Amino acid sequence: MAALGEHALIERLGRLVRKAPSHVPVGIGDDAAIVEPDRGALMAVSVDALVEGVHFRRSWSPPRSIGHKALAVALSDLAAMGAAPRASLLSLALPEGFPVAEFDELLEGFAALADSSRAALIGGNIARSPGPIVIDVTVLGSVKRRRWLERGGGQAGDELYVTGDLGAAAAGLAMREAADSSGELEASERACIDRYERPEPRLRMGQVIGRNRAAAAAIDLSDGLADGARQMAQASQTGVVLEADAIPLNEGARRWAARAGADALTLALSGGEDYELLFAVRPRRRRAFLAAAKQAGNSTVTKIGRLTREPGAWLDRGGQLQPLPAGFEH
Amino acid sequence: MAALGEHALIERLGRLVRKAPSHVPVGIGDDAAIVEPDRGALMAVSVDALVEGVHFRRSWSPPRSIGHKALAVALSDLAAMGAAPRASLLSLALPEGFPVAEFDELLEGFAALADSSRAALIGGNIARSPGPIVIDVTVLGSVKRRRWLERGGGQAGDELYVTGDLGAAAAGLAMREAADSSGELEASERACIDRYERPEPRLRMGQVIGRNRAAAAAIDLSDGLADGARQMAQASQTGVVLEADAIPLNEGARRWAARAGADALTLALSGGEDYELLFAVRPRRRRAFLAAAKQAGNSTVTKIGRLTREPGAWLDRGGQLQPLPAGFEH
Repeated sequence: MAALGEHALIERLGRLVRKAPSHVPVGIGDDAAIVEPDRGALMAVSVDALVEGVHFRRSWSPPRSIGHKALAVALSDLAAMGAAPRASLLSLALPEGFPVAEFDELLEGFAALADSSRAALIGGNIARSPGPIVIDVTVLGSVKRRRWLERGGGQAGDELYVTGDLGAAAAGLAMREAADSSGELEASERACIDRYERPEPRLRMGQVIGRNRAAAAAIDLSDGLADGARQMAQASQTGVVLEADAIPLNEGARRWAARAGADALTLALSGGEDYELLFAVRPRRRRAFLAAAKQAGNSTVTKIGRLTREPGAWLDRGGQLQPLPAGFEH
Repeated sequence: MAALGEHALIERLGRLVRKAPSHVPVGIGDDAAIVEPDRGALMAVSVDALVEGVHFRRSWSPPRSIGHKALAVALSDLAAMGAAPRASLLSLALPEGFPVAEFDELLEGFAALADSSRAALIGGNIARSPGPIVIDVTVLGSVKRRRWLERGGGQAGDELYVTGDLGAAAAGLAMREAADSSGELEASERACIDRYERPEPRLRMGQVIGRNRAAAAAIDLSDGLADGARQMAQASQTGVVLEADAIPLNEGARRWAARAGADALTLALSGGEDYELLFAVRPRRRRAFLAAAKQAGNSTVTKIGRLTREPGAWLDRGGQLQPLPAGFEH
C-alpha cells in the first residue's frame, strides 16, 4: 500500500471530503456511515466497478478523470431509476507503491462530481491489490414511492426515446486506442475523448421523467444502445425494433468514423459508455413525456423505435429488418 | 469472464437469490435496487473488500467460505454500529475463465449468510479482472435514532470490554501458512481455522448494546485488539491501557502457540480478523451493559482495560506499562 498505510489513506480521504451534509449524522471514518432517509422516500442503491486494464488505462486517462468516471457510471444507474443522489461510498484496491499524488487526484475527481451531484462521499475502504487498480463505487439515491423507473415496465406499442446523442464515447475510446494525437483532431472529435473520460450522468432527466411518471421504463446505456434496448425488451417481455435512420449520432463520432473508415451507427449500437438514457413511453403519455423532457432541459430526446409484441431485437434499415448487433463487452 | 458473460453471471446470481423481502420492492437485476427504510429508522451503510492473495487464497479456503467471509466482514461493521442488517450488494471482479462451479459456490456461501442474517442480496456487479479476484461488499443496516454506536464516543475513565475470545483467527491463518495438516491438530486448534475462514459477526450483541444505550463507543476488531483499541482511543481523544492478564485468549490459539513457539497474546493483540467487538462503557452504566450483554446471550464479555486522560496506547503487564504493539496489516 503506497508510501502510506490503509489508515493513513483513509484519513487522507476523510480530509479531502467536505463536511458531511445534514442528512449524514455519521460520515466517513467510523465502522459504518449513518444516513437519514428523506421523509416518505425510498432508497435506491447501486454498485459499479472500474477495473484498470478493462475499463480504463492509467496511460490514457488522468487520475482525476478516472475518479470522475468511477462515480459517474454509478450515478448513471440512479439516473436510470429516476432517483436523486444522496451519498456515495468508494472502495479502492490499489497496487503497492501507488503514488499518493495520483491517489489525491483520483479522489479530487471523485469528490468534485460528488459535490456537484450531491452524492456526498460517506464511506471508504482501501485495500492492497497485487494486480490492477479496482474502483468500486456504491451510490445511494432517494426516490418517492411509485415514482421510480424500472427497465421492465415497458409493453408492446411503447415508443422508445433516447437522450442526447450516441457513439461519442466509443469514438473517444477508439481514438485513444489508435493513439490519435489530439493535435490532428477537430474540436468535435476531441470532445469524444472527453465524453469517454468524463461522462455526465443524466440525473436531472431521469428524476423529472420519473417524478412525472412520464415513462413506463428506463435503462442507462452503459454497454451500447443495442444492449440497452435488448435488456429493456427482455425485462418487459416484449420484442424491440430500432429505426437506424432515427438514431441520433454524435457529430464528432460521425466525423471521426468517416475519416477512420469506421461506421458511426455501429459505434452507437455496439459501443459502450455513452451513459445516455433509453425510455419506453406509452403513446398516450407522449405529450407528458416530451413536456417533462423539455423541463429537464439539459438534453434533447429522440424517438428511435418501439417495443413490439413479436419477440426479438431488430434494426429497421429503410424497411429491411436486421438482427440487432451484440452489445459492448469490456 | 468465465465461460459465461457478465449478463449471464448476473442472471445466475439473481436465480441463486431468494425472493426479495417485502422491504425491497426492486431487487437484483435492475439499474438500482429500491429499499424501503424502516419507519423512523436511519440507515447504516458500509463497504468492505476481500482481495485474492491479500485477504484470502483459493488454495487455502473453499469458495463457499470465501463468499461467507466477504459478507461477514462487512456485516461486522454493522454489528459495531449496533445496526440490524437489511440488505447487501456484491461487486465481483473475476479473472477470465473463472469456473462457473466456483462462482456458484462462492455465491452460495454469501447467500446462506445473507439469508440467516437478513442481509438480502439486492444488487450485484460483475467485472473482468486481469489480476486477482476482488470481492466488494456493501451492506445496509437499520438503526434507530440515538441508538447507534460510534467509535469516538468514549471518554477517560470508560471501561473497555471485549466479546468472546481473541487470537483464534490469527492462529488459524498461521496454521494455513504453515500448511499444518488438520490430522495433527486438536479439535480446539482446528476450530481456529474455522474462525479464520468463517467469522461470525456479533450482530445481536451490537444491536442489544446499542438499543439499550449500554456502551458509549464500539468498534469491531478486524485488524487486531491493539489496532482497535488505538483507533477507539484516537477517535475518542483519550489514551488507552489494556491489561495483558485480562485479555481472553482463545484456547485453540493458546495450545497452538505453545506448540509452535508463538505467543498467544501477540496473536490477540496484533493478529487480525477475530471480528469480536470492543466496547467502551461508562462505569455508571456497567450494570446495564452487563445485563444487556447477557441478554444478547451468544457471547461472553470480558473487561480488559480502560480509556485514560493520559495520551498514548499501553499494555499493562503486571504493573509495567509497555507501548501497545502495532495492528495487523494485510
